Amino acid sequence: MKQIEGGVCAAKGFTANGIHCGIRKNKTKRDLALIKSEVMANAAAVYTTNLVKGAPISVTKENIADGKAIAVICNSGNANTCNKNGVEVARKMCDITAKALGISTNDVVVASTGVIGQELDITPIAEGMDELAKGLGDNSVNAAEAIMTTDTVLKETAFSFNVGGVECRIGGIAKGSGMIHPNMATMLVFVTTDCAISSDMLKKALSDDIKTSFNMVSVDGDTSTNDMVSVLANGMAGNKEITEEGVDYEAFKEALAGVTRYLCRMIAKDGEGATKMLECKVDGAPTEEDATKIAKSVVCSSLFKSAMFGADANWGRVLCAIGYCGADIDVEKIDLSFASEAGKIDVCKDGYGIEFSEDTAKEILVCDEIQILISLKQGEYEATAWGCDLTYDYVKINGDYRT
Amino acid sequence: MKQIEGGVCAAKGFTANGIHCGIRKNKTKRDLALIKSEVMANAAAVYTTNLVKGAPISVTKENIADGKAIAVICNSGNANTCNKNGVEVARKMCDITAKALGISTNDVVVASTGVIGQELDITPIAEGMDELAKGLGDNSVNAAEAIMTTDTVLKETAFSFNVGGVECRIGGIAKGSGMIHPNMATMLVFVTTDCAISSDMLKKALSDDIKTSFNMVSVDGDTSTNDMVSVLANGMAGNKEITEEGVDYEAFKEALAGVTRYLCRMIAKDGEGATKMLECKVDGAPTEEDATKIAKSVVCSSLFKSAMFGADANWGRVLCAIGYCGADIDVEKIDLSFASEAGKIDVCKDGYGIEFSEDTAKEILVCDEIQILISLKQGEYEATAWGCDLTYDYVKINGDYRT
Repeated sequence: MKQIEGGVCAAKGFTANGIHCGIRKNKTKRDLALIKSEVMANAAAVYTTNLVKGAPISVTKENIADGKAIAVICNSGNANTCNKNGVEVARKMCDITAKALGISTNDVVVASTGVIGQELDITPIAEGMDELAKGLGDNSVNAAEAIMTTDTVLKETAFSFNVGGVECRIGGIAKGSGMIHPNMATMLVFVTTDCAISSDMLKKALSDDIKTSFNMVSVDGDTSTNDMVSVLANGMAGNKEITEEGVDYEAFKEALAGVTRYLCRMIAKDGEGATKMLECKVDGAPTEEDATKIAKSVVCSSLFKSAMFGADANWGRVLCAIGYCGADIDVEKIDLSFASEAGKIDVCKDGYGIEFSEDTAKEILVCDEIQILISLKQGEYEATAWGCDLTYDYVKINGDYRT
Repeated sequence: MKQIEGGVCAAKGFTANGIHCGIRKNKTKRDLALIKSEVMANAAAVYTTNLVKGAPISVTKENIADGKAIAVICNSGNANTCNKNGVEVARKMCDITAKALGISTNDVVVASTGVIGQELDITPIAEGMDELAKGLGDNSVNAAEAIMTTDTVLKETAFSFNVGGVECRIGGIAKGSGMIHPNMATMLVFVTTDCAISSDMLKKALSDDIKTSFNMVSVDGDTSTNDMVSVLANGMAGNKEITEEGVDYEAFKEALAGVTRYLCRMIAKDGEGATKMLECKVDGAPTEEDATKIAKSVVCSSLFKSAMFGADANWGRVLCAIGYCGADIDVEKIDLSFASEAGKIDVCKDGYGIEFSEDTAKEILVCDEIQILISLKQGEYEATAWGCDLTYDYVKINGDYRT
């Protein structure tokens, strides 16, 4: 498996595009994305667990109930959530897309991201669809741009991998930034692959994957109403279809994980206002659940996130976050270190503070990717979570988002 | 029942003091507080649920296992947590206090607040004890000052109430600010009363009270390692001792609630960096648990807290926080309004946005006490939670707390 250039157009038979159609006021900002497979693809998606769900979520669920899809339509600038006519508008988005592409409306995945509670005007989408569809091509970048909200960095990646001697490709684009918190799909991620894999195995691979990828990312503890991760697999690589667990399935899962882990790190690093990415690695936990709770709790702590912004080795806040997360562990066995490209420093041993150089700690913590390494020494399980620091800019961005 | 002046010295037979002994570098900042009852008092306390507990917590638990106490000693500037010699130092604090007051070391409640993981030097406490004890008097204000950390406002209040025709008094001091989050005692609160009430009934009253008082306050979602709420009842008012539920017990509970609710609001309003207090009132919930989850979720949402800082009526974030909190409710029945001294505005009806004047909303939201009123219209239960906005200053305060 190796990382390659590109995003959702890296796999055979996928084209994409993104334009400014007019949902957003800023004319330089693309706001409508389209992804299309040349042939019918198997499709799987996972959705937000928020009870308040965007209308596009329910329409997508209906549309891919048969495990099939050909295209993805997604707008930014308006979440189409908590609107009385939400489902109607989401269906119209599918109709308009299907008509332009000559496919069935039931084969469209639809998504929206942006402000909640303001009606989404279908007019700019209808008027822009021709231009959008005509521009379909090797334009993953345009699509990735069109789904960005407060993101500052375009997020795409792709990998090539081998299934039964046949080269397959998988790639994805993502939007993250704010309202990012564990519990399924807390962002928009679209993955495409030319690997032939049955709809059931695709669903299984995705459901397993998100537990240790997107569900381990937190920017601000808020689980969004709209987010989803979807995968389209069109089989055009020509490998023997994966229909059961085994070597081929593992190869696919590894490649999927390559894409999702990479996008997770990008999302965490580009969290609203973030100046640095936090990666919390927990090992030696008595259960996987305990490891997961601890890793997530640390990257979610506002106090610790603020300390990281200030490059302050305030490790007591890590222990505090471990202590209240609900994991059933012996806190007097915890070892804790901070690490980055500048080195590694031990700050706590067996639950108690040890002497360390504040200067060395500062050098490590001013870097823009920080690892928090927690050894519990009471079991075999491990987990990794990703987050970012809490900064003035997070407050600024969210203090006046709508206006 | 009526609110009166004073704090922990309002009740008969209680004296207090607070001095600068030298734990904190800033000589103008008091850092050691003492509260004393003239006679043996019944005592009850509730503690943080964090697995990582400050050493003073375990020593206090031992000392009041018999339901009795005479004095409270508390320092700020160092939490005495995650230190190998923590319990030893906490015990020494009790010994020194007991010796100075001529009481038993087992009758001392001990507490510490401040940085985690740095050894607490007993020397300044030992050296300052004489001055501290000699200054005992009607000095609730000094004690309240000495327990402050990043608090900007001194927190004390008192009430008088009537038990069987006898006037009783109850008062308290508190420190809050950061690392404040539901789950028991997430701050330091010391309450004193001259009401005669049995140790068992005192415990019961306190345990019941905190569920709807301090456990409903959140500043930043971090549950501290050290915090406790303790009550000393010395019986000097001369009422017939309350030993069972009934009218007298209810009168006591009401007075206790008067003190705790007042301190809750003060703690929320003075959250680290806060510019305004948020009070979320939920009614019409199918269960008390659902009402509680929803109220807490709203005041804990970083996104919503940031919006309130910006006086932005971004009500979608309230619905979002309701949706992910785990309450089992029908979101399509939710009505939502914002209110303050400037008026009230409806922003959402039956789960969908309604038109409202952004100008009026702004006028309401620039005030410094904001109510978020949520009517679920699917049951009889209600709950109230208190929090504050998320501001640049929260990040500033916590980005470099230790240095």
